[in-house]
Amino acid sequence: MSRSKLTMEDVRAVSPALEKYTLDKIVNGLWKRPDLSSRDRSIVTVSVLIARAQTIGMLHYFNHALDTGVTPGELSEIVTHLAFYAGWSNAFFAVQVLREVFAERGITAELLPEAEPVLLPLDEAAEERRAGIVEQSAGAVSPGLVHYTADALFHDLWLRPGLAPRDRSLATISALIATGNVAQITFHLNKAMDNGLTSVEGGEVLTQVAFYAGWPNAFSAVPIVKDVLAKRAA
Amino acid sequence: MSRSKLTMEDVRAVSPALEKYTLDKIVNGLWKRPDLSSRDRSIVTVSVLIARAQTIGMLHYFNHALDTGVTPGELSEIVTHLAFYAGWSNAFFAVQVLREVFAERGITAELLPEAEPVLLPLDEAAEERRAGIVEQSAGAVSPGLVHYTADALFHDLWLRPGLAPRDRSLATISALIATGNVAQITFHLNKAMDNGLTSVEGGEVLTQVAFYAGWPNAFSAVPIVKDVLAKRAA
Amino acid sequence: MSRSKLTMEDVRAVSPALEKYTLDKIVNGLWKRPDLSSRDRSIVTVSVLIARAQTIGMLHYFNHALDTGVTPGELSEIVTHLAFYAGWSNAFFAVQVLREVFAERGITAELLPEAEPVLLPLDEAAEERRAGIVEQSAGAVSPGLVHYTADALFHDLWLRPGLAPRDRSLATISALIATGNVAQITFHLNKAMDNGLTSVEGGEVLTQVAFYAGWPNAFSAVPIVKDVLAKRAA
Repeated sequence: MSRSKLTMEDVRAVSPALEKYTLDKIVNGLWKRPDLSSRDRSIVTVSVLIARAQTIGMLHYFNHALDTGVTPGELSEIVTHLAFYAGWSNAFFAVQVLREVFAERGITAELLPEAEPVLLPLDEAAEERRAGIVEQSAGAVSPGLVHYTADALFHDLWLRPGLAPRDRSLATISALIATGNVAQITFHLNKAMDNGLTSVEGGEVLTQVAFYAGWPNAFSAVPIVKDVLAKRAA
Repeated sequence: MSRSKLTMEDVRAVSPALEKYTLDKIVNGLWKRPDLSSRDRSIVTVSVLIARAQTIGMLHYFNHALDTGVTPGELSEIVTHLAFYAGWSNAFFAVQVLREVFAERGITAELLPEAEPVLLPLDEAAEERRAGIVEQSAGAVSPGLVHYTADALFHDLWLRPGLAPRDRSLATISALIATGNVAQITFHLNKAMDNGLTSVEGGEVLTQVAFYAGWPNAFSAVPIVKDVLAKRAA
Repeated sequence: MSRSKLTMEDVRAVSPALEKYTLDKIVNGLWKRPDLSSRDRSIVTVSVLIARAQTIGMLHYFNHALDTGVTPGELSEIVTHLAFYAGWSNAFFAVQVLREVFAERGITAELLPEAEPVLLPLDEAAEERRAGIVEQSAGAVSPGLVHYTADALFHDLWLRPGLAPRDRSLATISALIATGNVAQITFHLNKAMDNGLTSVEGGEVLTQVAFYAGWPNAFSAVPIVKDVLAKRAA
């Protein structure tokens, strides 16, 4: 399946209009807008595809990510990050395709982040607040979920140096919007902006996600994003 | 992948009960109910499959749609429409299968809607209301999303003559219910009914979607549909 | 597609970290926790995979389910059950893989639950309450949905003896959490606990689903699970 590749000729054979929209609105429109860099658009797009297990676009966009400045190591980290934020099988679908992309480009394991690197320092104050919120909501319900959220996610995954915290956040909010998980957007958009994402970039993430995950998912996120921006501006 | 085809023998080998339900409840039950035409059921079903990227049923139901009165041009437009309402990759998954169906039936590009047809006239008053609502909710958040919602969707896609507005709405609400995007159902169900969908048909869409996208998605839509019907009856 | 199989070598070639997490957190961590049996974890995991149409993990986990005490007949029933609770195509994706697993193990139709077995007795009082709630919410909206919810689901599927009611409930809530269908969790978690699921097991289901369907889906379910537990304890 990972080898399946759609050509513009295939698209035209089913819908000349879809080919036109792809070229006019996406290739020559969306990707050339100034509010988000090509590299950021690549991070958003591959995160959307992984979060939705949409293998059909992965070969093209994994290559495109590497061509727009996402490093192999960063792409490797995005896949690993989204195992936790989109589900393990989603990461494995991506592995299937990315393994081919890496092989074709001669990218071997030495070029990838190691399994156990020296971690970034933990922001103790922010972590204490996070742990308190999770304990209060989930502590009495699911001790296992509380345990792994600290142990695997915030004391480990988020501190891996192979992907900058701001980019890790960008991948996370892209996945959340793309899968309609609106309840977690507030926390992670604030974290993304604490990590350097601007409000203009945040707004343009919605535009990018609209095309790749559909208008409804983008619009469902609008009131939450609006609320976060308003509270940060106040 | 698009070639994978499941037979009733395969189903029986895993679950004799699933074969029985498929025949009794769906083939000889659901599809013969009077509240929605076979053609409408086809539009609902292919929209659900495309919106959920469920390639496994596409070969059968794309053919069934053509056999129940959906024209090749209408099917082409549904795929294009759902690129925007379910995500670009969803449309591309559908292209992969539909290209084969068209090839087998000798349906070539001349039989499909052209890329840039003469558009239907814009309902200026309705469009002004819609643009106002979108501007108010998303204007300060995502100018790109506001731009493309007008430029690509309401001034272009929705005015393409290859699919009647009522059928375009039917595809849209089917996709929304099937993907749990309840927040957009109110706007689009009202639009569907303004475009001619009856309340009986709307209710039966829920029945059809229940089988193809699961009971939970159908039931999550029930209170919204109920509210729309109540307000229109008042 | 059902034949695609990912090896740990593939995972390592894309992300040494993902291999490490898979072994440390899932294989040697999650699955060895005491709060939920291996058999229950298998029911949860295959239900998550089926509900999300994630074919990539099915070959491994269908076999693992059979190796941890889920019988072929129970696995057959889970697929059939989730046709209704996740969508018909989801069940058909599972059939494609499970047919191979059964063939390799020599499991033939005689070992599977028959299409029309003697059903379990109906709990008339509980059924009257359920029917009343559904009639009130959906009766005026979708008579078809009301009809099939009784006829196909609660007077038939739920009474099939091939899967214990408690395990049927476990499959159902796993699918609901994994697909973000939070609105139905209250009813089905209560039903699961009426059928014997403990609150400790319920909490650990969230941990299991977090890994296979992503953290956001698990956390979206937390407040609903918490509310159910609080009301039952009161």
